Amino acid sequence: MNRSWVPVPDGSDFPIHNLPYGVFSRPGEAPRVGVAIGDAVLDLSRLDLPAAGDFAADALNPFMSKGPAAWRAARTRITELLTDVTHRPALAPHLIPQTEVRMHLPFQVADYVDFYASENHATNLGRIFRPGQEPLTANWKHLPIGYHGRAGTVVVSGTPVVRPSGQYKQPDSAAPVFGPSRRLDIEAEIGFVVGTPSRLGHAVSAADFADHVFGVVLVNDWSARDIQAWEYVPLGPFLGKSFATSVSPWVVPLEALAQARVTPRQHPSPLPYLVDGRRWGLDLTMEVRLNGHLISRPPFGTAYWTPDQQLAHMTVNGASLRTGDLYASGTISGPRRDERGSLIELTWNGSEPLELSDGSRRTFLRDGDTVTISAATHLANGTSLGFGEVTGTIERTLAHPRGNPWTK
Amino acid sequence: MNRSWVPVPDGSDFPIHNLPYGVFSRPGEAPRVGVAIGDAVLDLSRLDLPAAGDFAADALNPFMSKGPAAWRAARTRITELLTDVTHRPALAPHLIPQTEVRMHLPFQVADYVDFYASENHATNLGRIFRPGQEPLTANWKHLPIGYHGRAGTVVVSGTPVVRPSGQYKQPDSAAPVFGPSRRLDIEAEIGFVVGTPSRLGHAVSAADFADHVFGVVLVNDWSARDIQAWEYVPLGPFLGKSFATSVSPWVVPLEALAQARVTPRQHPSPLPYLVDGRRWGLDLTMEVRLNGHLISRPPFGTAYWTPDQQLAHMTVNGASLRTGDLYASGTISGPRRDERGSLIELTWNGSEPLELSDGSRRTFLRDGDTVTISAATHLANGTSLGFGEVTGTIERTLAHPRGNPWTK
Repeated sequence: MNRSWVPVPDGSDFPIHNLPYGVFSRPGEAPRVGVAIGDAVLDLSRLDLPAAGDFAADALNPFMSKGPAAWRAARTRITELLTDVTHRPALAPHLIPQTEVRMHLPFQVADYVDFYASENHATNLGRIFRPGQEPLTANWKHLPIGYHGRAGTVVVSGTPVVRPSGQYKQPDSAAPVFGPSRRLDIEAEIGFVVGTPSRLGHAVSAADFADHVFGVVLVNDWSARDIQAWEYVPLGPFLGKSFATSVSPWVVPLEALAQARVTPRQHPSPLPYLVDGRRWGLDLTMEVRLNGHLISRPPFGTAYWTPDQQLAHMTVNGASLRTGDLYASGTISGPRRDERGSLIELTWNGSEPLELSDGSRRTFLRDGDTVTISAATHLANGTSLGFGEVTGTIERTLAHPRGNPWTK
Repeated sequence: MNRSWVPVPDGSDFPIHNLPYGVFSRPGEAPRVGVAIGDAVLDLSRLDLPAAGDFAADALNPFMSKGPAAWRAARTRITELLTDVTHRPALAPHLIPQTEVRMHLPFQVADYVDFYASENHATNLGRIFRPGQEPLTANWKHLPIGYHGRAGTVVVSGTPVVRPSGQYKQPDSAAPVFGPSRRLDIEAEIGFVVGTPSRLGHAVSAADFADHVFGVVLVNDWSARDIQAWEYVPLGPFLGKSFATSVSPWVVPLEALAQARVTPRQHPSPLPYLVDGRRWGLDLTMEVRLNGHLISRPPFGTAYWTPDQQLAHMTVNGASLRTGDLYASGTISGPRRDERGSLIELTWNGSEPLELSDGSRRTFLRDGDTVTISAATHLANGTSLGFGEVTGTIERTLAHPRGNPWTK
């Protein structure tokens, strides 16, 4: 494995074999594309690269739309520049400490789809929401269940999350009340970003996953469980999710993850268009921190459905892909209690409060709470890489613009 | 009421008090913005108008983003130009017969939401899908149920609709099969297009509807009922809908519809943020034609939830609006059988085939079938206007790219 002439601290998320892309700016400057290396950002807009114009953009979409040959060419060249020390004098002025930059939403989100890939998570939710019934619905092992979320409220890590208001129904009352959510939750997920579009009416095979998917981000799909529980029958989650979905600022190229691949077991064997897949399960361990306290380590490698299967499923009806489509795994939960990816699971619907290491307790999120999700993988060649983080802090609900009375 | 110096045939959808906006091109020319008047399109990109640059765009988004004062100013000026005959010599070169132009998707769709506003429709579907249970779910009269659809597969009228393939389960088998949908359906809906964006974390009041919503289109939300029935529990419709949603090419300005407003009755009274609304029910009658045969006349004025209530609900959790957001009413069905807005209702889940006026019968759509939806309103001042049409023809499913075997 090559090493970079840029110093990379031990345990850094961003060694030379990662090179994730993001969009950054310094005060008073326009956002542009860079890659992370160690503690620095390399400003790609100032380098003599193929597709250099794409790196002066304020989103990765132009570059991502170019397809896998362009992605490989850029990655190969950037790797050369950062490993061959003769390039140091030319590049040094364009290496900026990450502490000096602001990170932006890395891509314009076209459509956002959220899947439901973790069997442990789906089983936990089934037990909580539909007690006494089979926890997994009859379709669960036949298809990767998913639904469309709100693309316009996907925000970059660090964006404050305003506690949503909405309708919810308390168990002891017949009518709903309106007010700020009392059961605000997180969902720790991994997201996949589409680069290469596809044609309407043409399915994309699972085998073509790496030709279409550009890279991988961390996702926190904030969820208001009280709003969700009241609204979601029969057409699925809506306002319980649509107020905010946070993503990490760095998009890890798929190529960097090839050695992290795992193949989950599936029984019964799914239909042929899904059997094709299962090549892109990924051995990643996520870490969820609440106000700095580690509360869970969801293992992404335990997901039942893989992202190549999800891609094939999402398009098997002829739905087209656009550059910037984001699809997320759904909450990842491992079999152990301390591997669950949401508070509703970690506290079993609020009945078993979580004790933080400072002695405070939580069921759902309080105003001012900060949740940070990170992830790392140990690659087959013995190295590792990370994803940076996705973080957000809960803000108090703002007043309704017309001052409607509501039940607090 | 003024009259235009442009000849407008009796019964035209596009009299001077309509002036819908669309995006058109002639062969070899770039798409640009025009308004419909009678049988012509007035090319706005060639006129000396405020915001003229916005009309040289290939989508209405730049103009729509300017907000209601700009919309009123443009409409006032275009009305002057088309009613004062002294402008005729200057404008005549920019009036193009509609038969000579191709119409494009009129706006870039940001997020697409589909509601479920018709009580007759929701009741029919409840009876068909959940026999023996209360047809309306407990939440139905408390909130306008909705979900996000796929924005990237919203297509303009005339785009062929490829029959989707997918999983469905037959009643007599335990496992699903894969193949082309056998229960391909339509949904006759009215869609609302957002112009003015809103801030994340700030609810939009129903009273501010006309400050945010630019105009109205016809929507056919094509639906594969067999795929939908198998996939939709617990997270809602996904592939049964995401292959195509067709919209009409002309966006009727909200201002043109002010005299069509009606206020539906609602019991029980909804929560205060929804009581604010109900000012923008619209007295429109839709017509659905299958291969030219009139099969239904859904009355939009019977919808239970109104678009201003839907807007308030969609944002009450702080979700922001973007220019180009599209939200549709959901299938509109009146109380009479010949007012139902989908084939699953018109044929009662296929059990009562529809006899067309040529003697042929239908349950669901066959390859080659063409469905066309139109709508008109009779305004309080005694005039009327129309929406043009949204049409689409079913194409045979294409082969899967990798030739996967599947059960036909």
